[in-house]
This record gives sequence, structure tokens and C-alpha cells, in this order.
Amino acid sequence: MSDLPKSVRINEEGPREGFQIEKGAIPTRRKIELIDALSRTGVQQIQVCSFVNPKNVPGMADAENVAKGFERREGVRYTALWLNQKGLERALAIGRLDVHGSIALTASPTFLERNQNRTMQENIAAQHAIVEMYKAFGVPVERGSIMAAFGSNFDGDLTPAEILPLVREILDIATAHDCTIRVLSLADTMAWATPLTIQRMVGAVRERHPELRIALHLHDTRGMGIANAYAGLQMGVDIFDSSVAGLGGCPFAAHGGAAGNVCTEDLVFMCEEMGIATGIDLEAMIEAARLAEDIVGHPLPGAVMKGGSLRRLRDKVAARI
Amino acid sequence: MSDLPKSVRINEEGPREGFQIEKGAIPTRRKIELIDALSRTGVQQIQVCSFVNPKNVPGMADAENVAKGFERREGVRYTALWLNQKGLERALAIGRLDVHGSIALTASPTFLERNQNRTMQENIAAQHAIVEMYKAFGVPVERGSIMAAFGSNFDGDLTPAEILPLVREILDIATAHDCTIRVLSLADTMAWATPLTIQRMVGAVRERHPELRIALHLHDTRGMGIANAYAGLQMGVDIFDSSVAGLGGCPFAAHGGAAGNVCTEDLVFMCEEMGIATGIDLEAMIEAARLAEDIVGHPLPGAVMKGGSLRRLRDKVAARI
Repeated sequence: MSDLPKSVRINEEGPREGFQIEKGAIPTRRKIELIDALSRTGVQQIQVCSFVNPKNVPGMADAENVAKGFERREGVRYTALWLNQKGLERALAIGRLDVHGSIALTASPTFLERNQNRTMQENIAAQHAIVEMYKAFGVPVERGSIMAAFGSNFDGDLTPAEILPLVREILDIATAHDCTIRVLSLADTMAWATPLTIQRMVGAVRERHPELRIALHLHDTRGMGIANAYAGLQMGVDIFDSSVAGLGGCPFAAHGGAAGNVCTEDLVFMCEEMGIATGIDLEAMIEAARLAEDIVGHPLPGAVMKGGSLRRLRDKVAARI
Repeated sequence: MSDLPKSVRINEEGPREGFQIEKGAIPTRRKIELIDALSRTGVQQIQVCSFVNPKNVPGMADAENVAKGFERREGVRYTALWLNQKGLERALAIGRLDVHGSIALTASPTFLERNQNRTMQENIAAQHAIVEMYKAFGVPVERGSIMAAFGSNFDGDLTPAEILPLVREILDIATAHDCTIRVLSLADTMAWATPLTIQRMVGAVRERHPELRIALHLHDTRGMGIANAYAGLQMGVDIFDSSVAGLGGCPFAAHGGAAGNVCTEDLVFMCEEMGIATGIDLEAMIEAARLAEDIVGHPLPGAVMKGGSLRRLRDKVAARI
């Protein structure tokens, strides 16, 4: 039988995942408008921008203004992404972001080489240096993550036999620097996962490392996002990254027309309908999704924002009886 | 633990579900082109058209020409939909369709009244008459179906307490006319189901009626289609209706912008990736999905047709090694 959690934590990544991939320039004030709308939904964490080289990701050239412009709301963690010390310094300089470090390995050697121009060994060495950097800046490191954890367009299927040693490696890197990893994120960067591989991978990691809380970062490129999230829930996973309206996608993962992350409001709908608390007001998240669509100026993949919630229909039925 | 079947039967409903809802007229030869493309995928059953009043469904005015025009392929069952004796007679007159009867009840009284202008009791009486009609025409009746089995925009949530008596009613109607129901189809007509309600409903029906083979007809209006199919697979369901590229939707179910049935090639992708045989060549189904998009002239919701299969990526990886 299933082992559904009582509540889940949803990390909203739409503003970062979404706006970095859009072709046209999006005004800073509209990015801030979306972040402020998301803040009002009850979501616990919002990734607001990435501090990367604007030459590579022009859509994030206004990261400082976005990060300084939104209204901080009590109880929400505002995070950002960076890839090196310069990016971390930019994030810290904002002074109002929740800055946490992580140890990130990539399961696909060819993808790693293409994406970051590093071998697996070079990446492990780099992670040691990154943890030292975090320590030097007083930034806590409690999260590990494995990219392309279920398969890669460049290296094919990846199984627990390949992933478990990477989990071990992440824990060893942390231990070497007196850090303790509490959350392990498995990212299906190139959308290779199915519910069955989610079940097997999460099961294998949980069995070996019962002390780790597992997070899933799921892409919906092949339409499996929500089903994979359900398989994760059945295995007790209670942290998910998602994007409002399904904004985004990875510009470096080499699939044209790719859908982005699993859609936040669809995930919230499924969880709440199954009695799993998200802390998020679905109607407010649907409004934020419609705002996101208005901002990017083209249809986004979310379904519940078009089909509507059931609460409104239930209210109508109740009013008629 | 899960109880995934070794193989599933997929009933393709795209040509009927899809073309009846499209606004513009679709040339008959293009409908036939899609049916012929679907015939080459290995799918076991295709619903090619509906014999309904062309005043109500103008997109099906050419049903006879479609039904006479496609190329019959060995091993494929070609079915159609009708709502009354006139429609059945039109289907039988074609002489090359696989004509099977079914007993269909609707779980939502208000939906039934709006959609068919009948009370529950009138509908039960009508089903008795329909079975007699089938017997008079020598048409076998082995399938029962329940529409809106998981909830209704007009009557709210529906649970096993409401559905089990309808299953009993269907079996009683069949028995009264010396028929035996072998397959029971549960239709989530207005997309109220979640994986948890699928699990509960299928579990309740299976427990009470272990002799029945259960089929699911899932709509994807709220993005739950594939996750609901997965929940069904876990409960041993091995018959699914679906639409290539996600064509279609019910024009009478009162949700604007509604997505249609769960998408065939996304379902095939999930099943085949999990080791569940569909008999369908995924690449051929993706080609059929792209053809469907070309025919309707606008984007359709299918994901795998955009994201691509994994087989091609695996082949590339294998070629490089």
C-alpha cells in the first residue's frame, strides 16, 4: 500500500526556471509582480532569480533589481541560484535572500562535460572547494543534489547502481568539511523518469540512507511529471520543486520544445485533493499561474489553470442543494 | 506494493473524440488518413466515428464515408459510437465495423438530465430497452460503463457508495436479458479523479466484483490523466481509452478550454518504459500524433510527441559507445 505523507513542502522555481528561458525580455517589474503574487499563495519557498553571467543567460541580467524589488513576506524563504563564488557573492550582497549552499553532482559524465566542461573527478574536487567557500562565507550546507539522476540524453539510463555511489560521495564531501546533509534532491533533468524508476530509485536511496529526506525535481518533457510526483509521494517523498503554470525548462539540456518543471498548481491540486497539505491556497496559485501566462505572453502548459479547481464547482453544487 | 499488469489493451478514441469537437470542418480524407496511420501502429482498437445527429455534431456528418473509407487491418477492431437505434442501424449498415453493445449508466443525476434529459430511473429503463434492441440485432453486449464515475460538475464528488449500486444495476440489467458483462468501464467524464480516488474506486469495484475486468476512460482536464492511469495500472487495470495527441474532449461537459482524453502516445510511453506491453509501436504513434496536429491545424496537448521517445536517444548513445 501507499505511504503518502501528511504534508509536503513545495519549492517554487517558476521565476528562476521560467524567466531564464523566455526569448523576449521580460520587464523587471513584471518579474517582481509574479514573485509578490506567489508570496501571497502560502508557498514556503520561492527561487527568485539566478546570479549567473548575463552573457550566457541574458534573461537574468536584472537579477539584483529583482532580488531587491519584491516584498518579503514572513514565513517564505526567498532563494536564488548561482554557479560560482562570484554568483554567491552577488546573492549575499543583496542582504535579503535566504542563502543556503548545496553539494551538487551530475550523474551523466557526458552531460557534465558538455554543460560544465568538467570530468566527474574534477566535479568532485570542485564540490570540495565549493563547500569550503560556503564555510568561508558562513553559508550553511545541508542539501545535496544529483542532476540527471534518472537518465541522460547523452549517457542513457541511470540506475541505483550508478546513483548510490554519488549519494555516498556527496555525504563524504560533506563529512570532510564537518557538514551534515539532511536533504537529498534527485533531479530528472532530462525527463527520463517514469513512476517505476522513481519508485525504484527513491526506494534504493531510502533503504541505504534512511536518515536523508528526499526531494524530487521533476521535468515534464514527456508528460510524466505529475505521475512521477505521485510515485514519489507513494514512496514518502515530501519535498518537490515545481514551477507555477509549468514555466521554464533547462536551456542546456538539448531538447527542443521541452516542457519545464512539473507545474505547481497541478501538483498542489493533486496533493490537496488527496488530503496532503501543501500550505498553498490553490485559487491564489491559479491566479499566479494566469499572471505568469500574461507575463510571458504565450500559453503555458499548466492544466488546472485552464480546467479550474474542484472547490469552485463543489461550492456551486452546495449552493444549489 | 504495486500490481502492474504485464500488458494492457489501449482503445484509441482520437478520431471520434477529437474530430467531433473541432470547430472547423475536417476533410473526410484526412480523417481516413489518421485512422489508417493509427492502424499501422499496432493498436488493437480504434473508434473511427460516431453515428449521431449531424445537427448536434456537425463534425460527424461524414461518418458513413469515414467508416467506409479507411483500410481495415487484420487484428484491429474498428468501433463506433451511437446513442440510439437509428445510430446503431447506421453502424450496422456499414458492414465492416466491429459492433458491440454496452450498458451505460451515468452516476450524476443532474448531468444525466442535462445531457440526455432523463432521470436515473428513466435511464435504467432505457438501458433495458437498449439491451433488447441489441439482442434483436444480434449484437453482443459484454461491456458496462459508468459515466462521471468519480465526480460531476453538477453533483459534486461521487464515491464507491454511489457507484457500487450502479455496477450492480448494470449487472442486473444484463442478467435480465441473459447477457454477461465482462468489462466495466469507469469514465472520469469531467476530470474529478485523482490517483487516490482511482485507487479507492477501482479497489472497491474489484473487491465486490472480482470477475469484472475494469477499464478506465480518463480525461486530462486537470493534468491528472497519466497519474490516474498509473494509479489504475497499480490496481491491475489493463484496459484504457485514450486519444492520440490528446485529441478531443466532451463538448457537453461544460468546461471551457477542456483537455480531452488522456494522450495515447504518452500512455504508451509510460507503459512501455515500465515494461508493460501495449503492442503499439511508440514511434509510429508519435508520427500519428504529429499527423493529428497537422490535421486539426493547432497544437495538441500530447507531451511525448514534442519531447520525443527515449528509444531514439538510447540508440544514439549506443551508437557512440
